[in-house]
Amino acid sequence: MQICVIVPVTTQAFVAATDRAYRAAARPDTVISTVGLDQGPASIECDYEEALAVPDVLVKVRQAAEDGVDAVVIDCMMDPGLEAARELVDIPVVGPAQASFHLAAMLAHRFSVVTILERDIPLLDRLFRKYGVAEKVASVRVVDIPVLELGADETRLASVVAEAAAKAVREDGAHALVFGCTGIRGVTEAVAQALVERGLAVPVINPSLAALKLAESLVDMGLAQSKRTYATPPPKETIHP
Amino acid sequence: MQICVIVPVTTQAFVAATDRAYRAAARPDTVISTVGLDQGPASIECDYEEALAVPDVLVKVRQAAEDGVDAVVIDCMMDPGLEAARELVDIPVVGPAQASFHLAAMLAHRFSVVTILERDIPLLDRLFRKYGVAEKVASVRVVDIPVLELGADETRLASVVAEAAAKAVREDGAHALVFGCTGIRGVTEAVAQALVERGLAVPVINPSLAALKLAESLVDMGLAQSKRTYATPPPKETIHP
Amino acid sequence: MQICVIVPVTTQAFVAATDRAYRAAARPDTVISTVGLDQGPASIECDYEEALAVPDVLVKVRQAAEDGVDAVVIDCMMDPGLEAARELVDIPVVGPAQASFHLAAMLAHRFSVVTILERDIPLLDRLFRKYGVAEKVASVRVVDIPVLELGADETRLASVVAEAAAKAVREDGAHALVFGCTGIRGVTEAVAQALVERGLAVPVINPSLAALKLAESLVDMGLAQSKRTYATPPPKETIHP
Amino acid sequence: MQICVIVPVTTQAFVAATDRAYRAAARPDTVISTVGLDQGPASIECDYEEALAVPDVLVKVRQAAEDGVDAVVIDCMMDPGLEAARELVDIPVVGPAQASFHLAAMLAHRFSVVTILERDIPLLDRLFRKYGVAEKVASVRVVDIPVLELGADETRLASVVAEAAAKAVREDGAHALVFGCTGIRGVTEAVAQALVERGLAVPVINPSLAALKLAESLVDMGLAQSKRTYATPPPKETIHP
Amino acid sequence: MQICVIVPVTTQAFVAATDRAYRAAARPDTVISTVGLDQGPASIECDYEEALAVPDVLVKVRQAAEDGVDAVVIDCMMDPGLEAARELVDIPVVGPAQASFHLAAMLAHRFSVVTILERDIPLLDRLFRKYGVAEKVASVRVVDIPVLELGADETRLASVVAEAAAKAVREDGAHALVFGCTGIRGVTEAVAQALVERGLAVPVINPSLAALKLAESLVDMGLAQSKRTYATPPPKETIHP
Amino acid sequence: MQICVIVPVTTQAFVAATDRAYRAAARPDTVISTVGLDQGPASIECDYEEALAVPDVLVKVRQAAEDGVDAVVIDCMMDPGLEAARELVDIPVVGPAQASFHLAAMLAHRFSVVTILERDIPLLDRLFRKYGVAEKVASVRVVDIPVLELGADETRLASVVAEAAAKAVREDGAHALVFGCTGIRGVTEAVAQALVERGLAVPVINPSLAALKLAESLVDMGLAQSKRTYATPPPKETIHP
Repeated sequence: MQICVIVPVTTQAFVAATDRAYRAAARPDTVISTVGLDQGPASIECDYEEALAVPDVLVKVRQAAEDGVDAVVIDCMMDPGLEAARELVDIPVVGPAQASFHLAAMLAHRFSVVTILERDIPLLDRLFRKYGVAEKVASVRVVDIPVLELGADETRLASVVAEAAAKAVREDGAHALVFGCTGIRGVTEAVAQALVERGLAVPVINPSLAALKLAESLVDMGLAQSKRTYATPPPKETIHP
Repeated sequence: MQICVIVPVTTQAFVAATDRAYRAAARPDTVISTVGLDQGPASIECDYEEALAVPDVLVKVRQAAEDGVDAVVIDCMMDPGLEAARELVDIPVVGPAQASFHLAAMLAHRFSVVTILERDIPLLDRLFRKYGVAEKVASVRVVDIPVLELGADETRLASVVAEAAAKAVREDGAHALVFGCTGIRGVTEAVAQALVERGLAVPVINPSLAALKLAESLVDMGLAQSKRTYATPPPKETIHP
Repeated sequence: MQICVIVPVTTQAFVAATDRAYRAAARPDTVISTVGLDQGPASIECDYEEALAVPDVLVKVRQAAEDGVDAVVIDCMMDPGLEAARELVDIPVVGPAQASFHLAAMLAHRFSVVTILERDIPLLDRLFRKYGVAEKVASVRVVDIPVLELGADETRLASVVAEAAAKAVREDGAHALVFGCTGIRGVTEAVAQALVERGLAVPVINPSLAALKLAESLVDMGLAQSKRTYATPPPKETIHP
Repeated sequence: MQICVIVPVTTQAFVAATDRAYRAAARPDTVISTVGLDQGPASIECDYEEALAVPDVLVKVRQAAEDGVDAVVIDCMMDPGLEAARELVDIPVVGPAQASFHLAAMLAHRFSVVTILERDIPLLDRLFRKYGVAEKVASVRVVDIPVLELGADETRLASVVAEAAAKAVREDGAHALVFGCTGIRGVTEAVAQALVERGLAVPVINPSLAALKLAESLVDMGLAQSKRTYATPPPKETIHP
Repeated sequence: MQICVIVPVTTQAFVAATDRAYRAAARPDTVISTVGLDQGPASIECDYEEALAVPDVLVKVRQAAEDGVDAVVIDCMMDPGLEAARELVDIPVVGPAQASFHLAAMLAHRFSVVTILERDIPLLDRLFRKYGVAEKVASVRVVDIPVLELGADETRLASVVAEAAAKAVREDGAHALVFGCTGIRGVTEAVAQALVERGLAVPVINPSLAALKLAESLVDMGLAQSKRTYATPPPKETIHP
Repeated sequence: MQICVIVPVTTQAFVAATDRAYRAAARPDTVISTVGLDQGPASIECDYEEALAVPDVLVKVRQAAEDGVDAVVIDCMMDPGLEAARELVDIPVVGPAQASFHLAAMLAHRFSVVTILERDIPLLDRLFRKYGVAEKVASVRVVDIPVLELGADETRLASVVAEAAAKAVREDGAHALVFGCTGIRGVTEAVAQALVERGLAVPVINPSLAALKLAESLVDMGLAQSKRTYATPPPKETIHP
């Protein structure tokens, strides 16, 4: 099957890294194509930047559907444009936040999210309510590193994320962990291992991987988003920039 | 005080009608300025169209703040771009959905929304959850008229909305009503009167009016959205169309 | 318009202070009349005292309606007699708890209440559930000063309230603050300023002001409580004291 | 043990009927004393009447405690003054609404309330939220008979209540029933039998009986309401009528 | 009346201790018969052990009903087999978890559970959701003593439980306490007294006693579980071990 | 990978049919082994039968883990023994109810369950609460066919299920459908097609397939249930039958 991964930012280094990560995790029969944005923000850290990213995300989603791919993943934990994209096309469109939150809810009593910035908390909380998983959330823990600095030092990143994760398990009662930014996915195994070493082993969920596996599963099952929930937009005059 | 009303569509007739409605309802000391979009959809009836509207809404919000207005209202029941706009500026930004749902929750045990299209239901439901009012909602009733046809026949509009409203009161236990589209606001009094005549009198809330009065109240109180919830976007490179 | 403010206690000093506060905040075209109780407790700090206050509150509400005022505010954060008063009259009756909780819910992700006594916690919690805002509450913080001592030293009051408010923001994730007693309203600006100085600026809501602005807005909109939720009491024999 | 039953109205016929009902249901070692109000409404059908009843209910509760009874029941489905009474005394104070709703929640998936007047619905709904049982409620069904006419024709009362009860079971998914007014308790067995005859047998809960048995159980267990939730009122000057 | 208490483990010492506890607390007219399991685990501390216990619990429940007892109590805070047992027989079947959680919910704003093992937390949380009391729970506190060691040193047990209970009241806002294991019931009075001595008096609920009193009350009222919720199993071939 | 499917009943015909269904849907690299029970009920339609099935389910789960399979699916919509099995082994254990409910929650605004018997409703409702998806459920629709008759006439089964499904979409607002019994899975495509023909197309989820794909995904991701939520049972003496 063919899955198109949309990286909803204009930073090309993120596109290449995301492509590598998805190819490494895809099933042998899954073909990954990864595309970034031509227009939009360098990274998404707030509602304002998400709003600027979405129009070009939707262009990319429509293009992917026209190209005949089987499913689309929008690789950002804000799930930018997920609902609009699901209206626009009939193939499955998946977001890592929705996929990973539900996965965590299935594997554990409660889960925590380790994320990058204090300002993410209300945004994550809105996602928890939107997806109906709020009662399964133990806490949100913050490491305070901006997206664009995440790649600078993976060793330090693993260390601070592991520290936050350990606190979530020990102090907040988290029984599983989800990363609040797909940019953290590179340290998944290091963090999981660090928790094992502290006697705090819990599932550590790489949200990109959760999204990819959900997309593959949906294609296998012949399912997609409900078009009663995400009805195709009516034909209508629109003035584009 | 000065309040800028943003009509988040490119249909100029809506801008003029909205301007008249707000001027008629504003306090004597409130100066209304109304602006439509240069880029975006002719009307907003789904997430896709909302996504296309938001970037220019944000341009208009920033401009309004730079012009020194005291508050902004985004006049559409999807509250398009409300969170992003609240991040972008420090002056109060108000949406009619949030304002009218909370007002209805304060005046009545449960309220119903009378809206225009079946496809609005999941979008409204997401708003109910986002704003935390879901448990106060009795039902959503649909009249099945597209936005761009709302102005064609106000007498018929009043009649079908009153019919749906009466069913919401009698069959669903609604004790107050909110319109699910600001384009219905012209028939508020006719619908309220029709309910009185049927012995079903309940508050009928014009959401534009609820938004305007909330905006005026916030300016009076010297309050605005919390900048801890809606933190100012970080400076960042963005590629604009 | 004319708004009657009922101070639901027999302490005359509170009546005078409340009158000054409302007059200072009212719109130029709003006429405030303030009335205390002839019978009831010196202050309200529990359900028992609230129960003793309500009968005379209802006498005052009925009198206000007969006098032709446009709206009534019952100035106490227990909203004593709010539902009964709304049954009794057709003009809008507003309580500061309901008005300020919904306002805070609209401006911020979560809000905290800073209140005076530990014993208020279950009473506030009942109000949160009654008004449907429980999921928006971050915490209740207590300063431990009885109502009747609030006026003794406003500088110290501002200081302890600011300390509790700062903890609510820093430790509990509060993004807005509401005072749990209208008797604290005099220090609203001082507390807001103290938070700004600590880098913890959030909206600080004076509940009396929230109630007044809601009352003014309702009169502007021609709206009042739903008489289906608050039906007029049936004519019935009652033995009065 | 000694249990004082307070009938929170001034209608003496209700006091006598209530006394008979409680004596018939009490354990052999339970002594019932029943007292009505000297001041207050003839019956309670709304918040206004409840507010008028509570002050004398509290006088009766205090008197009962001074007389050395072991527990108090306030026999009305509005549980008028329950929280204030629990503050006032240390002996257990029980209300039939709280007792019967929790009992129904323990015996069945969902329960419905059959009550007397349409106007009760928002009041019952507030009680469901206050007591935390809202998610266990299937529906409220109304028979439309005022309290003061309940005793006029018990055969007809049983018939209309059974009809509403049958609809609640068949159409609303009720698996247990609670009466919304203690004045209906006389037809409990007739209604239960009518449901059996229709093949719709479910537990039919007489709320007065539920309250009595809870009171007896609490005395047996040496338990009462938490005085941290219902702290004793502070000594304070109060002007009584 | 006759009440059968099923101790759902094979440890005979628990059966004898349970029998003594129930006899001491039963009403004079209540005859207690206590029975342990022939097959199953020595104690129940997880879902796996609960699953192993339930088949023989059901044998004992059916036998009790055939013996003509009036009600059954399954004396374990996991309420093992409660729903299946309620299907199997028409007499009331009661579990201490359901009975004590609802009792605590009626007596206090919020309650905490003091339990024995960290691993109980997700199991208790599932019970809170199943019984609909989750919003009334302040916390779960753990003393970290396995069931089979509970009887070893009651003085130490009382001391560590009192310590955990005190923290729940002081730090978590618990206004009542429930034990998370019926094996703790022997120290109920010691813990309650220890809290009084620390100025932290709250109701301390012995869950076995709560179950017994609910069973007695149900028999008094002629009520049992709804057979629409717990329908009798259909006749069907089953291969027994 | 190797996945063991446990059919938690003793009816051998179900085992063979389940084996065929899973083999047909598995990925090429997935090896399915299917096993029924030696002891237990012929089918599971209530809590009592579930309780009788679980001990042998656990034997089969432990055996599968010892045999080195990568994951286990318990193929019944009651998810019998899911929690206990997750305690017992470290490999992923998956149930079709949990998997399909979360999948439906991700694809649609609200979903309905079409199930076989009226008596399933409270059991399904308990599962909705346990898994935290209750707010996403539109309705449960019943076709009234016992499990053991499901295979008798697949054409009639498809027809009655399609009829119930159509009502769920049209009258209850269902935007996706889940079958309440894995025995219905054979008509998934026929029901989906029947809905398309009526203009009511929504995703129709075969819960066995949802479980299989979740199991495959977990193995791909190297994830399993959290052992903090499902801790391994302590070593303990147990008397087996």
